[in-house]
Amino acid sequence: MSEEPGRITRRFLTPPMRDVHALLATRMKALGMTVHVDAVGNLRGLWQPAKGASRRILLGSHVDTVPDAGAFDGVLGVTLALEWVALAQEIDFPLAIEVIAFSEEEGVRFGMPFLGSRAVAGRFDASLLAIRDAEGITVEEAIRAFGLDSARIEEATADADACAFVEVHIEQGPVLEAEGLSVAAVTAIVGQTRLSLIFTGHANHAGTTPMHLRRDALAAAAEWIVAVETLAKNTDGLVATVGKIEAAPNAGNVVAGSATVGLDLRHAQDSTRTAAVNALLERAEAIAERRGLTLTCRRQMDQPAVPMEERLTAFLAEAMEAAGFAARRMTSGAGHDAMVMAARMPTAMLFLRSPGGVSHHPDEAAREEDVEASLHVARRFLERLATEAH
Amino acid sequence: MSEEPGRITRRFLTPPMRDVHALLATRMKALGMTVHVDAVGNLRGLWQPAKGASRRILLGSHVDTVPDAGAFDGVLGVTLALEWVALAQEIDFPLAIEVIAFSEEEGVRFGMPFLGSRAVAGRFDASLLAIRDAEGITVEEAIRAFGLDSARIEEATADADACAFVEVHIEQGPVLEAEGLSVAAVTAIVGQTRLSLIFTGHANHAGTTPMHLRRDALAAAAEWIVAVETLAKNTDGLVATVGKIEAAPNAGNVVAGSATVGLDLRHAQDSTRTAAVNALLERAEAIAERRGLTLTCRRQMDQPAVPMEERLTAFLAEAMEAAGFAARRMTSGAGHDAMVMAARMPTAMLFLRSPGGVSHHPDEAAREEDVEASLHVARRFLERLATEAH
Repeated sequence: MSEEPGRITRRFLTPPMRDVHALLATRMKALGMTVHVDAVGNLRGLWQPAKGASRRILLGSHVDTVPDAGAFDGVLGVTLALEWVALAQEIDFPLAIEVIAFSEEEGVRFGMPFLGSRAVAGRFDASLLAIRDAEGITVEEAIRAFGLDSARIEEATADADACAFVEVHIEQGPVLEAEGLSVAAVTAIVGQTRLSLIFTGHANHAGTTPMHLRRDALAAAAEWIVAVETLAKNTDGLVATVGKIEAAPNAGNVVAGSATVGLDLRHAQDSTRTAAVNALLERAEAIAERRGLTLTCRRQMDQPAVPMEERLTAFLAEAMEAAGFAARRMTSGAGHDAMVMAARMPTAMLFLRSPGGVSHHPDEAAREEDVEASLHVARRFLERLATEAH
Repeated sequence: MSEEPGRITRRFLTPPMRDVHALLATRMKALGMTVHVDAVGNLRGLWQPAKGASRRILLGSHVDTVPDAGAFDGVLGVTLALEWVALAQEIDFPLAIEVIAFSEEEGVRFGMPFLGSRAVAGRFDASLLAIRDAEGITVEEAIRAFGLDSARIEEATADADACAFVEVHIEQGPVLEAEGLSVAAVTAIVGQTRLSLIFTGHANHAGTTPMHLRRDALAAAAEWIVAVETLAKNTDGLVATVGKIEAAPNAGNVVAGSATVGLDLRHAQDSTRTAAVNALLERAEAIAERRGLTLTCRRQMDQPAVPMEERLTAFLAEAMEAAGFAARRMTSGAGHDAMVMAARMPTAMLFLRSPGGVSHHPDEAAREEDVEASLHVARRFLERLATEAH
C-alpha cells in the first residue's frame, strides 16, 4: 500500500490510501463498527456498546507516511486502537469508541501537517484548501479527486459527546530503549523554537592574518554551539540542537567571513524554553560583540508546548503500574495528532519503545512484547475509564 | 595587460604576459640592462657596473596573477627592483644586479605554484612539463607556444656568481597597517600543515533524542574549533584556522551524524607547528572518545618553514633603522618566490604595508609613502651591501 514500489510512501489522499481504508474498514466492520470516511479523508469507525452510550472516546493515529517510511509510525496506533475496541467488547465497556485513521499528519504532500486531526478538532481553516502540492494540485482538488466534498469538512468535527482522545504511537526516540522499558505515558508535546543565526565577521587570509586581528565568524559560531549544548545538558528536559551550519567562503585557507547556524530548541515548559532561547541569544550577542562581529537572527518557529490532560495521563500511568510496568512518564519531542486534538478535548498519549530510536526510516521497528505490554495497559486503562463512567 | 576585460587576470605564459615583458624590457633597456626571456618564461634583465663585477645580486618577484587580482601582488616587487637598479647606479654599486620577473608564482593555470622561481633555483623537475591546464595544454606545450624551448630550462638556473636574492612584496595581511608601519623585514616563510578531520557520530531526531543519548558530530567539531582557536591565541606566532566545515545531513531538526572540518596551521618554527598539530589531534581524539564518536584524519600538506638568511635580513633591518623606520621583523604567512630561491642562495624579503590587509582582490592597494619608504630602505641596504662587497 505505497505510492512507490519497494518502499513505503503514502501521502495524503494518494491512491494507496484507498487500499488502507479498505483493509481497515473490513477489520472495523468485523468488530461491529459503522464506518465512514469524512470530508478530509479520515477513516472513522464507530463502535457502540449493546445498550448504547451517550458519550464516546476517540482513539487513533495517522495512516499517511513520510517518503521511504517505516511500517509503524502512525498506522500502528490505528491497528492498536482496533485491538482496544476488541478489549472494550470483552470488558463490556460502557462508552462508545470511535477509531480514527487520520488522513494526514506528516505534512509531506502539502507542506502542512495535521490536516486530518485539524478537521476533527474543528480547526481546519478554509484557507488550507488552497494550498498546492508539488504538482500544483490544491487540497480542495485532492479531496474532490478522492471522491469527497470539501464543503462538508465542518461535519468532520468531533461531536460534543466525544469526551477523550487517546493516541498510541511509537516513541521515535531512544529513551525507552535506553531504560529497558516497553511503554510510557506522554505528559506533554514539547514546545519548539527554531532560529537561524548569522555571525558576520571578515574573511581573511588564513596565513597572513594573526589571531588577534581576526573577526572569525566560524570560531564565533563554534563557541556558541558549545554554549547551546552546555545549556541543554544542564537544563532538565531541554533539548537544543545546532544541526545545520554554513560557513562562507568555506575554504580551508580563508578565515570564515560569515557563519549561519540553525537552532532547534524544545522543552515541555514554555517558560523554560523562552528563558533558554533568551539566554542563548544573549550569549550569541555577547560572543559577537567581544569578537567584533555582527549578529542577525531570524525566528522561524515558536510553537507552545501542549500538555496532555493530567487526569487521563494519570489513568494511563496507573494502568501501567497495574499491568506490572514502570509508570514512566515522558515528554514527546515530536509533534503528533494528539497535540491538535488536545485543543478540543481531554487527550492522552501512550508511547511504545522504538528499537534503536529509529523512525522515518525503513529500519523503524516495534517489538511484539511492547505491543503486548501496551494492550495490557489498554485493558487496565479501559477498565478504569469504565469505572469512572458508571 | 589582462586575459579578461575589466579585471586583472594574467596567468603563466598567456598573451598579456608578452605585453608585460615588452613594457618591462623597455624600462630595463633604458636602465642599460641586457634583457632576455629564459626557457620557463622569466623576463631577466642584467645590469653590470661600469667596471664589471664577478658577482651579482638577484632582485625580483612574479608577474602572473590570480583571477580578478589586484595591481600590486608580485608586479610591484618587479617594478621596485628596477628602481633599485637606478639607486645602484646612483651609488656606484659594485655588484651586478639581475632583475627577474618570474613567470609563474600563483599556481593558477597548472595548479602548481613557483614554476618560474623553481627554474631559477635549479629545482624545476622535468615531470612538471607534463602537467596539463584546464584546457588540456601541458606546461611543455605552453612553453613552446610562447616561443620558448623547454629543453633549455636548465640554463635558467641562477649562475654561481649569484650571491643573494631579495624580493620586495606587499604583506597581504593586516599587521603593518595595525601597527602603523610602512615596511618590515621578513624573518621566515612559515611552515604549513593542512588536515581534514571527520567526526562521525549518529544522526538523530533533534526533538526525540535527549542530550545524554546523542553522539553529536557537529557539537564535537565545534568543541574542537574552539580548542584550535584557543591554542593558536596562546602560542606566539601561531595561526590556526578552521575555515571549512560540512555537517551531514545538515538539517536544522536533525542531530548531525558527521562533521568534516579543515585545519590550516602555520608557524615559522617547524617544532612549534608539529607540537601544535599533535596537541590538536590528541584533543580531537579525546573529544571523539568522550562523545562516543569516531575520528578520521587526512593530512593534506606538511610544508616546512623556510627561514630567510640572517645576515641579509639583519642588513635589511639595519637599513630600515638607518632610514628612520622601525626595524620591524615579521614572518610571512603566505608563500613567495623567496621561499624557493632560499634553497639556492642567501635570500631576504621586504614587506610593504597592505592597506586593509587586502590582497587577491581588486581592492588590493599600496601607499605611495610606503613605496617611498621601501626605496629609502633599499638605498641604505645597497650601500651596506656595497661596503661588504668592497
